[in-house]
This record gives sequence, structure tokens and C-alpha cells, in this order.
Amino acid sequence: MDKIRVTIWNEFRHEKEDPQVAAIYPEGLHKAIADGIAADDLEIRLATLDEPENGLPDSVLNTTDVLVWWGHCAHREVSEVVARKAHRRILEGMGLIALHSSHFSRIFGMALGCSGTLHWREAGEKERLWNIAPTHPITQGIGEYFELEHEEMYGERFDIPDDGRTIFLSWFEGGDVFRSGVAFERGYGRIFYFQPGHEAYPNYYDRNVLRVIGNAVRWAKPVFFRELDAPCRPALEPIRSRGKNGDGGRESVLG
Amino acid sequence: MDKIRVTIWNEFRHEKEDPQVAAIYPEGLHKAIADGIAADDLEIRLATLDEPENGLPDSVLNTTDVLVWWGHCAHREVSEVVARKAHRRILEGMGLIALHSSHFSRIFGMALGCSGTLHWREAGEKERLWNIAPTHPITQGIGEYFELEHEEMYGERFDIPDDGRTIFLSWFEGGDVFRSGVAFERGYGRIFYFQPGHEAYPNYYDRNVLRVIGNAVRWAKPVFFRELDAPCRPALEPIRSRGKNGDGGRESVLG
Amino acid sequence: MDKIRVTIWNEFRHEKEDPQVAAIYPEGLHKAIADGIAADDLEIRLATLDEPENGLPDSVLNTTDVLVWWGHCAHREVSEVVARKAHRRILEGMGLIALHSSHFSRIFGMALGCSGTLHWREAGEKERLWNIAPTHPITQGIGEYFELEHEEMYGERFDIPDDGRTIFLSWFEGGDVFRSGVAFERGYGRIFYFQPGHEAYPNYYDRNVLRVIGNAVRWAKPVFFRELDAPCRPALEPIRSRGKNGDGGRESVLG
Amino acid sequence: MDKIRVTIWNEFRHEKEDPQVAAIYPEGLHKAIADGIAADDLEIRLATLDEPENGLPDSVLNTTDVLVWWGHCAHREVSEVVARKAHRRILEGMGLIALHSSHFSRIFGMALGCSGTLHWREAGEKERLWNIAPTHPITQGIGEYFELEHEEMYGERFDIPDDGRTIFLSWFEGGDVFRSGVAFERGYGRIFYFQPGHEAYPNYYDRNVLRVIGNAVRWAKPVFFRELDAPCRPALEPIRSRGKNGDGGRESVLG
Repeated sequence: MDKIRVTIWNEFRHEKEDPQVAAIYPEGLHKAIADGIAADDLEIRLATLDEPENGLPDSVLNTTDVLVWWGHCAHREVSEVVARKAHRRILEGMGLIALHSSHFSRIFGMALGCSGTLHWREAGEKERLWNIAPTHPITQGIGEYFELEHEEMYGERFDIPDDGRTIFLSWFEGGDVFRSGVAFERGYGRIFYFQPGHEAYPNYYDRNVLRVIGNAVRWAKPVFFRELDAPCRPALEPIRSRGKNGDGGRESVLG
Repeated sequence: MDKIRVTIWNEFRHEKEDPQVAAIYPEGLHKAIADGIAADDLEIRLATLDEPENGLPDSVLNTTDVLVWWGHCAHREVSEVVARKAHRRILEGMGLIALHSSHFSRIFGMALGCSGTLHWREAGEKERLWNIAPTHPITQGIGEYFELEHEEMYGERFDIPDDGRTIFLSWFEGGDVFRSGVAFERGYGRIFYFQPGHEAYPNYYDRNVLRVIGNAVRWAKPVFFRELDAPCRPALEPIRSRGKNGDGGRESVLG
Repeated sequence: MDKIRVTIWNEFRHEKEDPQVAAIYPEGLHKAIADGIAADDLEIRLATLDEPENGLPDSVLNTTDVLVWWGHCAHREVSEVVARKAHRRILEGMGLIALHSSHFSRIFGMALGCSGTLHWREAGEKERLWNIAPTHPITQGIGEYFELEHEEMYGERFDIPDDGRTIFLSWFEGGDVFRSGVAFERGYGRIFYFQPGHEAYPNYYDRNVLRVIGNAVRWAKPVFFRELDAPCRPALEPIRSRGKNGDGGRESVLG
Repeated sequence: MDKIRVTIWNEFRHEKEDPQVAAIYPEGLHKAIADGIAADDLEIRLATLDEPENGLPDSVLNTTDVLVWWGHCAHREVSEVVARKAHRRILEGMGLIALHSSHFSRIFGMALGCSGTLHWREAGEKERLWNIAPTHPITQGIGEYFELEHEEMYGERFDIPDDGRTIFLSWFEGGDVFRSGVAFERGYGRIFYFQPGHEAYPNYYDRNVLRVIGNAVRWAKPVFFRELDAPCRPALEPIRSRGKNGDGGRESVLG
């Protein structure tokens, strides 16, 4: 079986600018995720914002099966052209795993059309993620719930489309709840939003978080890549009501 | 009760350029729709592509409760700025009724994030629209089905998000089927896609089509307008796991 | 406008058997709800388990627009015949508001086909109900959230169908979350499940709880009552592939 | 990998009583399906109505991973006890493939809670099934559509819950449309309704129909079997608002 070609994209700014973040993720959080989900069936590449074409030239994007995305403070520095290409590729089959603050990324916004607004609080509080979809591929190996000792709070109301299949519902110590894992299908592609992963906490070393991301990558693997087009289709059955000259029936209407 | 402020937007090109279309809709199809749905509870304005700011300056957009949209051959001439403003206003509460070929309009694409691709055929064939949501506000006054003697065929697969509530399913004489009426909610706003209305047929004079559009306008009336933002929310409950200095818990993580 | 005919059904056992419950709801919790939602557009009747035909003879059921249901310790004492009749009436248009422990009632199980299982804890803990559907009719007049100082905990995973529109998500002090308000449509009828209302706490006097129930009753008002049947429908279009004798085409298949 | 244990259940009356049906399915349509989907990863058993316990004693039901069901004229002869056991097993993980007229079977009604009503016509007309979920496991190997030269018409409105994922939409020669393939999840189990298969036509020999059934069996394979229960869960976090004696907080409420 062919390997799944995974590209893990990171904004990679906090790790360079904030020593406390660098202390947690010295090579970037993308590297921690890559190491954490490494497996024989995955072929993993890394990409970051400050590389040419934001790290996603056609040569990379067009050979990516599943794109993992982490962005926070520089969403607007991602070029619209790159975001549009990634959006199109999702519709044609690519998977997208949107992590944490990527709810405000261009790619998430383009693909879902919603604002992605929510409430937030950076207080290092405890989060408990309840698994409400125990038969879903993304939750295999995860129990009834798992906990993160410190996370940024993201709270409802989360402005996302209603067809997201809610996989995790989070409880926060400070009194909020959140749909912290939500799965969508768009075009021929699949999208999973997963809330954990504030840069100031080491949650991309957590085995449950990594298990979820690894599961999600496999769930979001393309069934196929196919261009979305809108062809004319000749009639499959005889049409009696058509106009005489067959040029679209206008005459039959206009007399 | 305040009237619903409806703006009917039309590309208004076919009617000017094609005598056969002009013969059907001499003042534009937007005018036919406006006349057809006129009622005491509606305050209707018209807007067209070739007006300044595509007919949708802030003074119009910001006083519109429900926007009815018809576009076909000039989707790309609608400015991105206008489309973005309209998208934002939908998320903040405005209703959108996207008619016929508007499945490829900027505003539909931005709001739903899908390609809107489908199959089509201009053969003047018969369409029968089956009402599969008889209790929905949009179908009140409509029977089990209604027929249009001549319509452009739009056929599956229609690339739209799965949370659309299917209201009508169409049968086409040439052998195709289509989800021809689909209702979405996005942000605080509501969106209804309705397939009938090829410019070459007089279907915006059809009483069932007009009834559906009128019902949809009332269904899509804003519950309220509200800005979508992402504020920080102070904790509602005491947080024990927080770091000592309360500056986001980083210290509690990094020691 | 005709009034909405509401029947509030209560098992009415705890109030008779447990002095602590009786002290809170001396006339039964159904009476507290009836008093709390009383309004000019509602015509409210009460019904209880120990009345003849469980309080729901045909004369009552067939004149009920919206049925409010509270049951807990005696679900199995409700006759199957009565539950089936109520189920049928829901499918034909009646609304059902299923409160608290009614997730295990016959009528809820029949209408949704799921087990309704969940986790629970009676610890008098605080519950905070987050409003995640601010434009829905059921949440009008309710803010971002409301709190109940003491409630029985109901926690995920809640085994219900996926097409429930989640209206409220609850945070519990003891660490659980719950989909505490969920709206369904079945047949021509509407169903709302609402979690608050353990008999040992006075939450049916809470103005937010009462507001939600009142809103839900109006949301669940029948659009119409109509029998569900499966008639034969003559062909609307000529059928060429049909067998010669027209008796179902068998000959054309079997030669 | 363990084989999937499939039980194909057939009412098996038409084949015994109607020579025309017997000529098409001499050993019963269940046998035709079994032969048609036979594969190394499936372990197939047959069961019929007139066997003891309707062919589904505990020894069979409790070792069935996926139950394929065909019933038509004798739905009420299936014992309620057997139907309830099958319903429970679905909720605990078993897959159900409900074929054709099984929309009116006890098991389908119990699991979905809807009436399953529709319109029908036995005219041997052509049906074209449009694949609107091309990435779904059930449609792999199926093109944009496939045709059946003669089928019984089932037409909208089909009374089913809204969370069914529509896989196929059918066009009928006589002018109707139908959601002819719909996938549900209930409890830990999966349910697929598939419309083709009137007893008077040889459609269970059609390679596309068989491909869909075979795919559906694999899609509906249990992820796990697990009892659905409603345990008390001790608090995961300290509860401050609880009553002093800790016996459920009643005292804290009643004073």
C-alpha cells in the first residue's frame, strides 16, 4: 500500500521569538508532531510560513495527501494564492487537519465559509476532552475522555457549519465548554478541526493528542483526487417538451 | 411589525443583450421577481451589476435584511470587496436567496466554501420539483410537487455542504435528478439555494416559483444582526491549575 | 389565532412519596411548569400516570398540539398502547417536549430509536447551560449561558441520533459535559429534549428554564396534522419499459 | 483478519407462493444475494421467517456482525421479541442492511422511529440511481449512476430521519424521485437502507446492486460490540455547591 504523504505546516514564529515557547518546541511544534505521529504508513514532510511560497509550492501541494496546519499570529501573511490552491486541492480530495488557532486561518475560513469565532482565555487551565463518537476512526484507542493539565481555553459559541460531526466535547476548569474536535467533508476532501495545541504548553507531546492527530491523518486520506467541473451532460432520456430547433428550447418558449 | 427590507440583485446582462430574453423579461428578471413577490410586509429594492459598487454600496447593503441574488455570465465582474462585505453581513444576520446559476457566484462560494459544481443541459425540458419538507416554512402553500414545462437541467452531483436541509428534489425529463432547493445556516444568517430560473424561460412568472421565493425571504429574515467577534472571556470558575503569576500559566508549565 | 393546546404530563410519584420533593413541588412539578409558562396563547391541561389510560385517553391526545413529558421511576408503567398512540400523533404533527429523565421514557425511545443512555450523578452540583444556537426560536430571551446552582449531572456520551440540532451544551462542576438541549424533527412533528429538572431541585421555578420550555412549546406547535400513509401513485409520465399487460411489468421481465 | 459474519434474512414467501417470482429466485432472493456477494472476507448464513424464532435465535443473532433484511408481505409475523433483540444488537454494534420493502419492517421502524411511508407504483419502469456520495465506501466501484431496466417505483416523500446520509438519489421513468440509498448510525451500529429489489424483477443479479450490498456490508461491519448502559459516574472534580451530607445535595436545596 502506498504511504500517505503528509505535509505538516507550521507558522513557526512563536518558537523563534519567544524563549519560553522555544524551550518547549526547540525545533518547532511541527517537528514535535512529525516525530510524535511517525509511522511506517506515513511519509511526512515539514513546511513553514517563511519558506518560499509559504512552504507550499505546487511541487509540495500537488504531492500532499493530507495537510496538517498550525497558524496563529500571522494568518494574514499566508498568501491568498497559496490558500486558494490549498482550498482547491481539498475540494479535489486532499485532507486537512486544522489545529488549534487555525480556526482563524485563511484555509479554514475559505473551506468552511464561517467566521470561526469563539471565546478564549489563556489561563493554563485544565481541559477534559470527552469522546462522544466512540466508533469514529478518529477516536480509536482513546477512552471515554482524556485530560490536558494546561491548555488555552476555547469556548462556545464556536461559529462553524452545522454538518460538522462532533467528535470531542471539551470541559474547561474555568467554566466553559467547546466542540474541540469536529469532522467535515467538503468536495471530495475531508477536514478535521482539533482544538488542543497552544504554543505555550507541551501538548503536542501528549500521547492522546498525538493519537488523535495520527488517526485523523488516516481518516482524511484521499479516497481519490478528481477535478471538480461542471460539464454539459447530453440527455439520457428522450425529451418531448423541447423546442423544435433543439437549441435550448428557447423557441418553444418564445413561440 | 417592521417590514423586511429585501434587495433583489440581478446581473442584468442577458436581458440587455439577448432579444429573446428581453422579450420575456423586458425590465429584467429582478423586476419580474419584485413584482411577483410584492406584499405589504416587504420593502423591495432593486440592484444590478453595472451600477456603482455593483449596486451594493454600504448604504444599501447595511440596510438589507434579505438579499436575493441572480448571476450567470459575469460572476467574476462582481468585486471581491463587495462579495466579502455581503458575506460578512450574512454571517452577521442577513438572509441570502441564491437563485439558479448563482451556485457559481462569488457570494455563494464564499459563504459555503464548496465548488458548487453540477451537471447541466439547456434543452428546455420539463422539471418536476418534489416537496420533501412539507412542514418547512419555505414549502407552505406548495403541494406534493409542482412542474415547470421548460427549464435548464441542473443535475447531480451537486457539490454543496452536507448540512443543507433539502427542501426540493427535482426530476428532469432527460433523466437527471437534482437537489433544487436547499437551506443552510451560516453565522447568524440563513441561505436558501433555489434552482429554477434560467433566463430563457418565463419561470419567474410561475406562481409556485414566486411562492417559494416569497416564503424563503420570510424564512431568511434576520433574527438579529450581531457582530461576530472572538473576545477573551474571564474565568467563570476558580482555576486551580493556573500558574502562580496568572499570566497565562506559562510558568506553571515551564517551571 | 387559535391557542396552542398544551398537555403537561407528569409521572407524579416522587411528589407523593418523598416529602422533600413534595416540599418543592407540592402540587407536582407539572403544576409548577404550567404556572410558569402560562400565557394567553397557550391552553394548558395537566395529565398524570395514575389517571385512567395514563391520563392520555384519545379525547386528550387527539386534542393536544404539544405534549410536555416528565417521567423517571415508572417509565414501564406507561402502557405501550398509550405510548404508541402518542408516537403516531407526533409523526402526524404533534410536538413533544421531553424533560430530564424522559430520555428513558417509552415515547422518547420509540420516537428516536436510540437507547438514550448517558452517565449521571446526583451530587447537587452546579450546571451551566451554554446557548450554542442563538438564532434558534428556543433560545430567544436567553443569553450566552445560564446557570442552575444545583442539578443532577447528566453526562456524555448521550446516545441520540445525529440529526438533533444541539441548542444547549452543559458544563458541570464535577467535570462532565452534556448536550442538554437537542431539537429533532420526526414525521410532521417536532421533538425537543431538555435536560434540567431533577425532582429534588426547584429548577422548574427558574425563569430561564421556564423561558426555554415556553419557547420550545411554541417552536413545536404543529404546522398541520396529517396522516402518514403510503398510497400507490399513478405514473405522471409515460412509461415505455413497462410490460404489455400493465400488471406490474412482470411479463416484460419473465418473457 | 476475522471474517465478517453476515446473516441474510428473507421473508421467503413470494418465492414459494408465486411461480413468476420462483422462476426468478428459485432458491429465494436471499440465496441470490448470498451467491452474488460471496467473498473470502465474508462468512454468510441464511435465515428465513418460517424457521424457529423467525430464523434468528440468540445463537444466530449473537454471532451476526451484519444483518441483511428483506421483508414485504409478512412484516407483522416477525415476532416483537426477535425485532427487539435485533434492535438492541444494532445499538450495540451490529450493522443492518435494510432492502427494498423493509422500510416497513419492524426492525427498521424500531431503529429509526419514523413511519417509513412513501409512494409506490408497480409498473416495471426504468430506475436510474444517481451516486451523490462518490467518496463514500458504499459507492466505490459504482460510476456516476447506474440503471435498472425494471423496478418498482418508490417515490418521495420518504419519511425518514434527517441524519441519513443520502448516498443514492433515484430517477424513475414515471416522473418520481427517491432517496434510494441512505446511511444512518444508531448507538454503536450502522444502518443502510437500499431501495432496489422488488421480488418480481431479477435485480439481485445486477452487478451494481450486488456491489452496493457488498460494499454496505463492509461499511456496516461493527467497530466493536459494547453494551449500552447508564452508569453513575463519580465526580472528576471537586464539587463546592454540594450539600453538606453529600447524599445528592437535597439538603443544600431544602435547607
